[in-house]
Amino acid sequence: MAGNSFGEVFRITTFGESHGPAIGVVIDGCPAGLAFDFDFIQQQLDRRRPGQSALSTDRKESDALEVLSGVFEGKTTGTPLAMLLRNSDQRSADYDALKEVYRPSHADFTYQARYGHRDHRGGGRSSARETAARVAAGAVAQLLLRSAGVEIKAYVSAVGPIQVQQAYAELDLTRTEDNLVRCPDAASAAEMEALITQLKGEGDSVGGVITAVVTGLPAGLGDPVFDKLEADLAKAMLNINAVKGFEIGSGFAAAAGRGSEFNDAFELRDGRVRTQSNHSGGIQGGISNGEDIYFRVAFKPVATIGKAQQTVNTAGAATELQAKGRHDPCVVPRAVPIVEAMTALVLADHWLRSRMAKL
Amino acid sequence: MAGNSFGEVFRITTFGESHGPAIGVVIDGCPAGLAFDFDFIQQQLDRRRPGQSALSTDRKESDALEVLSGVFEGKTTGTPLAMLLRNSDQRSADYDALKEVYRPSHADFTYQARYGHRDHRGGGRSSARETAARVAAGAVAQLLLRSAGVEIKAYVSAVGPIQVQQAYAELDLTRTEDNLVRCPDAASAAEMEALITQLKGEGDSVGGVITAVVTGLPAGLGDPVFDKLEADLAKAMLNINAVKGFEIGSGFAAAAGRGSEFNDAFELRDGRVRTQSNHSGGIQGGISNGEDIYFRVAFKPVATIGKAQQTVNTAGAATELQAKGRHDPCVVPRAVPIVEAMTALVLADHWLRSRMAKL
Amino acid sequence: MAGNSFGEVFRITTFGESHGPAIGVVIDGCPAGLAFDFDFIQQQLDRRRPGQSALSTDRKESDALEVLSGVFEGKTTGTPLAMLLRNSDQRSADYDALKEVYRPSHADFTYQARYGHRDHRGGGRSSARETAARVAAGAVAQLLLRSAGVEIKAYVSAVGPIQVQQAYAELDLTRTEDNLVRCPDAASAAEMEALITQLKGEGDSVGGVITAVVTGLPAGLGDPVFDKLEADLAKAMLNINAVKGFEIGSGFAAAAGRGSEFNDAFELRDGRVRTQSNHSGGIQGGISNGEDIYFRVAFKPVATIGKAQQTVNTAGAATELQAKGRHDPCVVPRAVPIVEAMTALVLADHWLRSRMAKL
Amino acid sequence: MAGNSFGEVFRITTFGESHGPAIGVVIDGCPAGLAFDFDFIQQQLDRRRPGQSALSTDRKESDALEVLSGVFEGKTTGTPLAMLLRNSDQRSADYDALKEVYRPSHADFTYQARYGHRDHRGGGRSSARETAARVAAGAVAQLLLRSAGVEIKAYVSAVGPIQVQQAYAELDLTRTEDNLVRCPDAASAAEMEALITQLKGEGDSVGGVITAVVTGLPAGLGDPVFDKLEADLAKAMLNINAVKGFEIGSGFAAAAGRGSEFNDAFELRDGRVRTQSNHSGGIQGGISNGEDIYFRVAFKPVATIGKAQQTVNTAGAATELQAKGRHDPCVVPRAVPIVEAMTALVLADHWLRSRMAKL
Repeated sequence: MAGNSFGEVFRITTFGESHGPAIGVVIDGCPAGLAFDFDFIQQQLDRRRPGQSALSTDRKESDALEVLSGVFEGKTTGTPLAMLLRNSDQRSADYDALKEVYRPSHADFTYQARYGHRDHRGGGRSSARETAARVAAGAVAQLLLRSAGVEIKAYVSAVGPIQVQQAYAELDLTRTEDNLVRCPDAASAAEMEALITQLKGEGDSVGGVITAVVTGLPAGLGDPVFDKLEADLAKAMLNINAVKGFEIGSGFAAAAGRGSEFNDAFELRDGRVRTQSNHSGGIQGGISNGEDIYFRVAFKPVATIGKAQQTVNTAGAATELQAKGRHDPCVVPRAVPIVEAMTALVLADHWLRSRMAKL
Repeated sequence: MAGNSFGEVFRITTFGESHGPAIGVVIDGCPAGLAFDFDFIQQQLDRRRPGQSALSTDRKESDALEVLSGVFEGKTTGTPLAMLLRNSDQRSADYDALKEVYRPSHADFTYQARYGHRDHRGGGRSSARETAARVAAGAVAQLLLRSAGVEIKAYVSAVGPIQVQQAYAELDLTRTEDNLVRCPDAASAAEMEALITQLKGEGDSVGGVITAVVTGLPAGLGDPVFDKLEADLAKAMLNINAVKGFEIGSGFAAAAGRGSEFNDAFELRDGRVRTQSNHSGGIQGGISNGEDIYFRVAFKPVATIGKAQQTVNTAGAATELQAKGRHDPCVVPRAVPIVEAMTALVLADHWLRSRMAKL
Repeated sequence: MAGNSFGEVFRITTFGESHGPAIGVVIDGCPAGLAFDFDFIQQQLDRRRPGQSALSTDRKESDALEVLSGVFEGKTTGTPLAMLLRNSDQRSADYDALKEVYRPSHADFTYQARYGHRDHRGGGRSSARETAARVAAGAVAQLLLRSAGVEIKAYVSAVGPIQVQQAYAELDLTRTEDNLVRCPDAASAAEMEALITQLKGEGDSVGGVITAVVTGLPAGLGDPVFDKLEADLAKAMLNINAVKGFEIGSGFAAAAGRGSEFNDAFELRDGRVRTQSNHSGGIQGGISNGEDIYFRVAFKPVATIGKAQQTVNTAGAATELQAKGRHDPCVVPRAVPIVEAMTALVLADHWLRSRMAKL
Repeated sequence: MAGNSFGEVFRITTFGESHGPAIGVVIDGCPAGLAFDFDFIQQQLDRRRPGQSALSTDRKESDALEVLSGVFEGKTTGTPLAMLLRNSDQRSADYDALKEVYRPSHADFTYQARYGHRDHRGGGRSSARETAARVAAGAVAQLLLRSAGVEIKAYVSAVGPIQVQQAYAELDLTRTEDNLVRCPDAASAAEMEALITQLKGEGDSVGGVITAVVTGLPAGLGDPVFDKLEADLAKAMLNINAVKGFEIGSGFAAAAGRGSEFNDAFELRDGRVRTQSNHSGGIQGGISNGEDIYFRVAFKPVATIGKAQQTVNTAGAATELQAKGRHDPCVVPRAVPIVEAMTALVLADHWLRSRMAKL
């Protein structure tokens, strides 16, 4: 109801502000008996962590995970799994200058409109810091999915105007972590890295696209009407800060084409019903069909830039703003594990939900 | 949980199959005291109805609305508002040939995977017929929003390769109903109509794009984390059959650009805080900012085409399919009221939810 | 949110007013593949129906069930199962005299406080008529439970001061339908019947108690914290009109006793862990233990009586009321199938929910 | 879904095991702008804390509250309010002997049936320790209600066979904290205290009854069908460990009486519509009527006793158990703040929900 929970059966609730004592997450609905791989979760957090490379903000957070409940003798207990991350590097003073100013394209003004106040120290709940809690929870969801043979891999497929030309199937997705931008195509990665470095110098920022691919998902997940699997994925992605667009399978390109081009013919292959093409992106009528799921997520440029910008203050007076906070010039490299986490949360939830469809 | 409800406070549950006795919807959470404009609701249903023009399927449904509960003396009572639409034109025999065949890019195969059976008579719940129930419910949501000064207008902005070049603000959206394709630009509309007619003759289908615009929405709707307003809109849109993509505000274009180009500077205008540009699409940090909301929705071509297609049957044997059912060559003209309805459902829900944000 | 739905997985939403066109229910979450026994459902409705005997109101409702969706070829489809009951005997005129009067111990005044208006024709949603929808849905839940070997039997164990002295295990619960009061003890039944008849003549009403017994439920249903099985049963019962109390197992008697008397020792019996006594009522720590569940439900006397009563009207002026509507002098005989239905809804929901507790 | 959350709008999720690192709670849906009285919350925790008097267990928990989020500059922010309590006194070794034994009338066996394992260290989530998290959350709900003039007072009205004879209105509820049993009638309190002390010596335990009274609640809270206010209260109470019964207003006594005795006549008093009597207990048709709400809650005797008991172990072999853990001989004195907390959670939720009933 208040928008801090996600999922129906595998349900998470995150809490915590950017500059409060801690952030955390409670997972309710993780089944009992799952082997709890603490290191995997910490590793996902490290992939998201600020300050991990020259391309990202130099806010330092150790993001050392503390598990408070729900795990006993190395396995999940079926009870709420609470995880905590202390906030270690809180330079609230950086934000004092912003106390009375609405930063352009941030949530400052809208937060005020909603709650009648705002936490000016780093955006409160609107801070990207909150996504660390999702990454921790998403890693648990990934453990659950992996136990069922499902793998999720996301990568940066565009930074500004630089786009990977190959389709996902032509790429070696095990190379994604080989470079700082998390792009499995080395040539594109080099160009992207150069652009981000250049913009950092200019005090500007740039947008990008992340592509996600899910393999090994069985047919039969998702609901035909209001919780179509692609709808829940779209919601999950648009719930990530700075995301402005989502397309699955043939996406916007399909809008320009014909049925005779975009239909996926069925055939029997590998002993089961398969599609010859996969314009559908692995989902038909809201339900997974056993093919790969793939989708693209558009991120706008980071709103915080070093250049001077016009704005108004809380008294309504015009003012100029030049940001001093620590922010990434391009958010997509660090958003890769967030996209993976949100994808995992959707799929783990539907995987459990599908247990109830038949007698 | 089973995916037939939508919304948290203004919550709808739809029921009914394409070829069962009836479809319908229960709205739970509509406040008491709303003037119930039956004619407006029927009118929205008529805009969605099949057989309304030469461009659409010739399935005939009178779609005469029956209100079963929740209205007394012309006003909503605050109790569940149930509405029923009888299915009148059920040519189930049309579908007998399909009983053992999986139609390409339909939900036949996935439905079977999910439920262990399927209703072969027109797709069961996966039929577009179900959307009539949403349109009825969405019309009630629109009545609620209109009482608060909010207007929703959608229109066809692309059919296949033919795209309206003007931005929404340059169009006269009161002209949308002037033509059969529901495109406010007459020149584009003529081209679109010609293309659809041509493809109908060829037994093919074509995709398209619908743009939706919301005016008059106050600032402060939406939640900053998991129920961001754009996320709920994305989910709503991807829950419409055949939708493959969603973008809000600057959308995918923003992914290719820079922060200095895409930030929306604040100013004081009309006595309130406004943005100079609206790349954000009326939502910042998941919460409405009082500017127009606008977004684009991509529809793939209708899967049912007259051309022969390869597929397999339920026994796994290869077969060829040539559809005989009645279907639209292009779904977007009739999808305009569906997009409006789903938009209204999201906004009515968040409008009520925002009542609880402050003490 | 608005209180017209019940259950999480096996979730029902009822709609309809006492004097509107119809009442009905949508079940969302009934698994696919359940044999749909229409006659059983109609039979449960007939047990609840007014006018079925000399002891009940003479409002006549045929309560002929119409199934609108969710059943195909004799089985549930896994999609929403909607059922409709038309209101046939609407003597709204009976209620015209009540338009401006608050009936004592009815919902008239509170309804007005909540919604700012009220439907004076028979109480709107507060009418016992709404429970017919629950009985229909509960019958489907019973079909589901029966497929798993679970049986629910309720009976009248007290009418006013007349109480059945035997514990449930000493009674033959197949005799419940042998008399009009639905009490399996013939001697008590005769006394109860005489008392009800006498009070009907006096224009008075009387309360009573219903005892419910569940057999065959496996261990492991229910949650240890906020959805304890007994808590959901208590909520289900208190949601029945006129219910003022609930006790499970040893109930209020246990409050007066000692641990050494009321603990249930474990033993191995019939090849499984059993309790020697069953003071717990089949639930320990919120979770079923495989023993019989039994509980008692207290109903206050029907508020509508033929005697003159003091009250105020909507203008706040004192007035006297002498009811003319048709009402039962004692509600418990007809409430037996309602108690069974609500019990079944809770158990079917938790039966499905238990599928998700373990990996 | 997994039963660790409570409430719809004012929604809490608790986490943590008795013998894990910590327990805690996240409140999602507390409106922004509420003055946050830390001391009041800590004070409620202290009333529930074990080891507070000679009558209770000597488990020592400091229960020092840590607020992790949702409060800024002394007020709630409208975002999730997370509170943490570290577990300080974990004598897990006390429980080693119980590892393979099912304690009679505990959740050991049912937990195992549900999750396929159990946390033998103090009952995991089934431990009364979990209720500390509820008390913290309930105290916040009380702050919210107090801002609206609503007060909740519970007290011990029976311990074993010793019952307070006066009705709540004849007692001075400000005297509840004057003695260790939390009974406002000093004479009864002395008897109760003597009985508990005696049973402690005998290694036995005893049940009891708590009565709760709510004053100042406006008319119009609660829903007429499935979330009747009394139903949500009943659920809240039965969700407290050891509770076996609930009755509101005239309760089980009404089942034995007549309508002419138990109806509450309306009159105009103090300028508003009031009832002359209050058999209804402040709720009619599921909705509050502005009168005092009062109800009684039956607690069975504590299951852990010092006497030897028969049971079986996890291998199914008969064994004898003599408990060594630290437990209260009578739970009701410490359960008073838990009853108050759960009551507050229900009312705060409905208080917010009532904001949406009317246009």
